[in-house]
Amino acid sequence: MSLKLTILGCHSATPRVNAHPTAQFLEIKNHNFLIDCGEGTQVQLRKYGVKFSKIKHIFISHLHGDHFYGLVGLISTFRLLNRETELHIYGPKGLKEIITLQLKLSNSWTQYPLLFHELNSDESELIFEDANVEVYTVPLNHRVYTNGYLFKEKLGERKLNTNAIAAYKEIEICDFQNLKNGRDYTLKNGTVLKNETLTFDPALPLSYAFCSDTVFFPEIVPLIKNATCLYHEATFLKDKEALAITTKHTTAAQAAQIAQLAQVNQLIIGHYSGRYKNIEDFKTEAREFFENTHLALEGKVFEIN
Amino acid sequence: MSLKLTILGCHSATPRVNAHPTAQFLEIKNHNFLIDCGEGTQVQLRKYGVKFSKIKHIFISHLHGDHFYGLVGLISTFRLLNRETELHIYGPKGLKEIITLQLKLSNSWTQYPLLFHELNSDESELIFEDANVEVYTVPLNHRVYTNGYLFKEKLGERKLNTNAIAAYKEIEICDFQNLKNGRDYTLKNGTVLKNETLTFDPALPLSYAFCSDTVFFPEIVPLIKNATCLYHEATFLKDKEALAITTKHTTAAQAAQIAQLAQVNQLIIGHYSGRYKNIEDFKTEAREFFENTHLALEGKVFEIN
Repeated sequence: MSLKLTILGCHSATPRVNAHPTAQFLEIKNHNFLIDCGEGTQVQLRKYGVKFSKIKHIFISHLHGDHFYGLVGLISTFRLLNRETELHIYGPKGLKEIITLQLKLSNSWTQYPLLFHELNSDESELIFEDANVEVYTVPLNHRVYTNGYLFKEKLGERKLNTNAIAAYKEIEICDFQNLKNGRDYTLKNGTVLKNETLTFDPALPLSYAFCSDTVFFPEIVPLIKNATCLYHEATFLKDKEALAITTKHTTAAQAAQIAQLAQVNQLIIGHYSGRYKNIEDFKTEAREFFENTHLALEGKVFEIN
Repeated sequence: MSLKLTILGCHSATPRVNAHPTAQFLEIKNHNFLIDCGEGTQVQLRKYGVKFSKIKHIFISHLHGDHFYGLVGLISTFRLLNRETELHIYGPKGLKEIITLQLKLSNSWTQYPLLFHELNSDESELIFEDANVEVYTVPLNHRVYTNGYLFKEKLGERKLNTNAIAAYKEIEICDFQNLKNGRDYTLKNGTVLKNETLTFDPALPLSYAFCSDTVFFPEIVPLIKNATCLYHEATFLKDKEALAITTKHTTAAQAAQIAQLAQVNQLIIGHYSGRYKNIEDFKTEAREFFENTHLALEGKVFEIN
């Protein structure tokens, strides 16, 4: 089992020739989620070979342009491609008005169902759930209403211990699902076999927490505790810690401290300010606090195990 | 005297890795005009070295995404760059609402004056004028309200014929401006010297007509008559003439017929449908009707004399 995260854009503020704004593509248990959608994201999706038809859910963190100005273009392109399947958009209240106004004035409503799930709570909410995956909001602290998102696999079925089962001829294939579901087994002679003697624990569920944009905000730690992988914005280095506070952004060292406090396995940082020429400095500063830190780089794919 | 036109994007519909939607940068008599602004235009401006501060007027033809989805990002970037000078936006009614809604919801109004000039007339209008340049709308016929734009130099001052003037000692430097303005000169002995004996005609004013998107629409011919250069959309080849009619677009041959009817000097075509692999075919079909046809290509600069 693994999550696969493709970085489509990882820079802050304005799109430049080689600096695309935030967008990520997450593959988790047969789901394909687009996270944020800065200007030019549809081109980045093409460039990195993501099939447009795979995307059924888009999560927007906040209504600053570098996180959503590419959304209306992507929605329009889906229309031109004759998409028929539902598209779900999760994001701050106001997003529906922005998109529908533009579609209305261009006289081009989508022929596919476009479903908005607008958010305005300051508490973490479960906003998506099916048999395999849950998605929670992670309220952040930025200049406008902003959410991170926590994507969690659900605990899978228990795994059959085929050697142990083989010792009991009377356990048949039709019993296997009950064992996978955790039930004990009662032999014909009345002996109860504990489930854990016949099965193994399922694989530990993986989780990915996406946190951008925010000031250093340890209040999120309980929400993202033990995440397999945390993406946290790191707009500045420590030389601009004061600016990070006034603009409500985070430094690389602060992002690493969040990772440390939340005891995550792995940290990815990004959303670099354009003022820094050497992105490696972000990694160096972060690793002082959290060794397993990696840089988001355009086109980089993280396999998260 | 020349106009300089830089093609920033020349393809129709959706942005792709090597196919940017419509945007052009026109330099005309010390003015710098941006014409249309598809998604990614700010990156294209950077790529082709256009200084953002030069742009004071932006002309949007219509509210289909491939012609204006890059506008809000550019406006936001101007804000981040601490622009102070006025920005004038010309485009269909509704554009102001779209832009202001997005700026309001992102809590980031511009600190520079942002002035909208919304259009809704079906008649050609003079929408900009100063001592050097005039800009007129060219109402087109598309699926939504659409204008082309005609950019015209004004006739300049007459040029002094210094040899002819030298024959008359009593004509002094302080008289030159009157001569440039076309006045006759009366000698002390009462003889009237006709202005055209002392001056040459000014350079012929140049003009650039931008026409995208539209069905084949000869009604525009009187408005763009004798333009130095015409850009006309050519979305399809003649194999898709029926589709051109239903989608209200033009074929290459039809664009060339408009150029022929309007007796322009030069035709540039663009807005190619993504279905065609060989753009050269557009030129071939157009040249059957109008020899001096050129292809819009990303990054190409046309010096129009």
